[in-house]
Amino acid sequence: MLIEAASPLDLEIAVLAASPADGAARIWPQVQIGSPDDAEAVTRFAARCDVVTFDHELVPEGVLTRLERDAVVLAPSAETMRIAQNKQFQRELFSTARLPQPAFATCRDLQEARAATFELGFPVMIKAAQGGYDGRGVWQVDSEDQLAAIAQGCVERGITMVIEEQVPLDRELAIQVARDRAGNLAVYPVVETIQADGICRQINFARGTNLPEATEIAVRIAELVDLTGLLAVELFESNGRLLINEIATRPHNTGHYTIEAITTSQFEQHLRAVLKLPLGSTEPIADAAVTVNVLGGADGGDPADRVAAALSVSGAHVHLYGKTQRPGRKLGHVTVLGTAIAECADRAWSAVELLVGEPRPEFAR
Amino acid sequence: MLIEAASPLDLEIAVLAASPADGAARIWPQVQIGSPDDAEAVTRFAARCDVVTFDHELVPEGVLTRLERDAVVLAPSAETMRIAQNKQFQRELFSTARLPQPAFATCRDLQEARAATFELGFPVMIKAAQGGYDGRGVWQVDSEDQLAAIAQGCVERGITMVIEEQVPLDRELAIQVARDRAGNLAVYPVVETIQADGICRQINFARGTNLPEATEIAVRIAELVDLTGLLAVELFESNGRLLINEIATRPHNTGHYTIEAITTSQFEQHLRAVLKLPLGSTEPIADAAVTVNVLGGADGGDPADRVAAALSVSGAHVHLYGKTQRPGRKLGHVTVLGTAIAECADRAWSAVELLVGEPRPEFAR
Repeated sequence: MLIEAASPLDLEIAVLAASPADGAARIWPQVQIGSPDDAEAVTRFAARCDVVTFDHELVPEGVLTRLERDAVVLAPSAETMRIAQNKQFQRELFSTARLPQPAFATCRDLQEARAATFELGFPVMIKAAQGGYDGRGVWQVDSEDQLAAIAQGCVERGITMVIEEQVPLDRELAIQVARDRAGNLAVYPVVETIQADGICRQINFARGTNLPEATEIAVRIAELVDLTGLLAVELFESNGRLLINEIATRPHNTGHYTIEAITTSQFEQHLRAVLKLPLGSTEPIADAAVTVNVLGGADGGDPADRVAAALSVSGAHVHLYGKTQRPGRKLGHVTVLGTAIAECADRAWSAVELLVGEPRPEFAR
Repeated sequence: MLIEAASPLDLEIAVLAASPADGAARIWPQVQIGSPDDAEAVTRFAARCDVVTFDHELVPEGVLTRLERDAVVLAPSAETMRIAQNKQFQRELFSTARLPQPAFATCRDLQEARAATFELGFPVMIKAAQGGYDGRGVWQVDSEDQLAAIAQGCVERGITMVIEEQVPLDRELAIQVARDRAGNLAVYPVVETIQADGICRQINFARGTNLPEATEIAVRIAELVDLTGLLAVELFESNGRLLINEIATRPHNTGHYTIEAITTSQFEQHLRAVLKLPLGSTEPIADAAVTVNVLGGADGGDPADRVAAALSVSGAHVHLYGKTQRPGRKLGHVTVLGTAIAECADRAWSAVELLVGEPRPEFAR
């Protein structure tokens, strides 16, 4: 989607993709195949670039350091990426800055994990400090037995645990903020995100309380991590109070709605920020907008084979990422614009049902 | 722009491009290099395709016939393309169908051209029946001397002339209609187009009279040429009456505004129509929308080098086509959405001035 945003502006983009089957490699001619772990490949790639940016957090520390040493222009910076890659660093940083977040403890072994859960009380959320994505590397833990199993797995794989209290949820919110190298900011509307099994299913403009507070938190984080590019902040609203859940220093799933619903999409905005182009308007295009994620269905059917059915839903903007189907995997999303959230949601879910071959979940009925 | 519309839908697209420097070849990995004149190249390309469509009218008759003989699925059909490629065929077809158009005559030599101008009266418009594009192949002729020079040139190059009365213009209109293989239609709003020196400069939603009539004419033409895909019809409004100027059976410059301003862009709609996908909503996204074309400036500067300046104009959606700069060549366009045409036009022209390095023309001040 970064490429789809770069193309109309005639920007010169090159992509480092792990495999020719990667979504980006399938839709762009300037692709180098190489793993983000491979310092040689990344260095060779970076040598062609005026600016290097990231659409994931998987470039290892050693590779970041080498890019820094080679004076490659990274946006966000290596320092920002180190924070983005590590939930422990984030929690400690927010703690120091007195930003609101769940109570947490950093634990390296079962003993520390036991002490933390004694303090926090079951259930807790355990997060791998590094490497988690889309519900992976995150566990809800209700008992000592579970705790022991997870802790053992983490210790064996050398993973630091961030153990967090599980707060009661009023709802979950998210927000995007872009910041350029000069420190200028562009702030997107606050959205509500509806999750199921730890995976975001639906995103729509948020209404009600705490929206200015959400914006303020996101702006403070952008400045705290000295961001260049796009920041997404996911927030819990718990007993009327906002708490930071997670952040990402790149275009994020909770901001995909911006492609149709906002004057400047998060993808174009990220490119503008990292390429020293002026930031664009974040004015909404419509009163209501709903995005629903397309998760691989249990029947194994490929949504790409079902596009015709989904396009029969009027106003459904279908985005498929060209990924291999796997049940539960995020394979695309559908956005519908309109005047009322309920109607947009109904249409988006109608299209997603047709793509996935499964009825919508209970909350969307 | 067809590719930019195909990418989110994960459609499998291959492009036959005349040169690796062509806009499409620069932004898509599945490209075969070959001339549309080269029957072997076109045949080899078509053998890979379920459906072949066109974004210009330059595939020669012999090549179309060969594709038909090979049972390649063409959309639009070879028969539709023969009409689209030939202004004489169009005029004769519209005449038979009693559709409103300027008085015209088809002329093969100076004698016939003299007889026609005697009938029509100077000034006349002379159009090459085939091969014209973007003001090329069209001449305004005011005198016998000019007529003799143009006619001689056409005779030498074997070009049939379509000579048309030059009608007084109230304004010019355009409209897009999509039609799928089952005959379903999707009709876009009527737009006003503002031309200078035979080149379209600005497009905006039309207001006032004759809009239903314009729609009716476009629908009748779509059916008359048995269209599959997108049709653009350019119309003169002359003494309060509509007359057909030109048609194109593909996404057209006068419809570029649909990318941001309409729920389904003309590009996505064309793909839907030719791929047997359901046609999409043509509901406007905004009350007002203005598109201004980016023509290469006299200073030879490349708009791609001036994107940063243009993006400082709030709400300017910049599209550059990756073409080599040539003064007067259409290199891109800018669309602005809003609530009033005047304000959108002012902002779009501000961005275009910055891209082109020239002040806007008189009519836009």
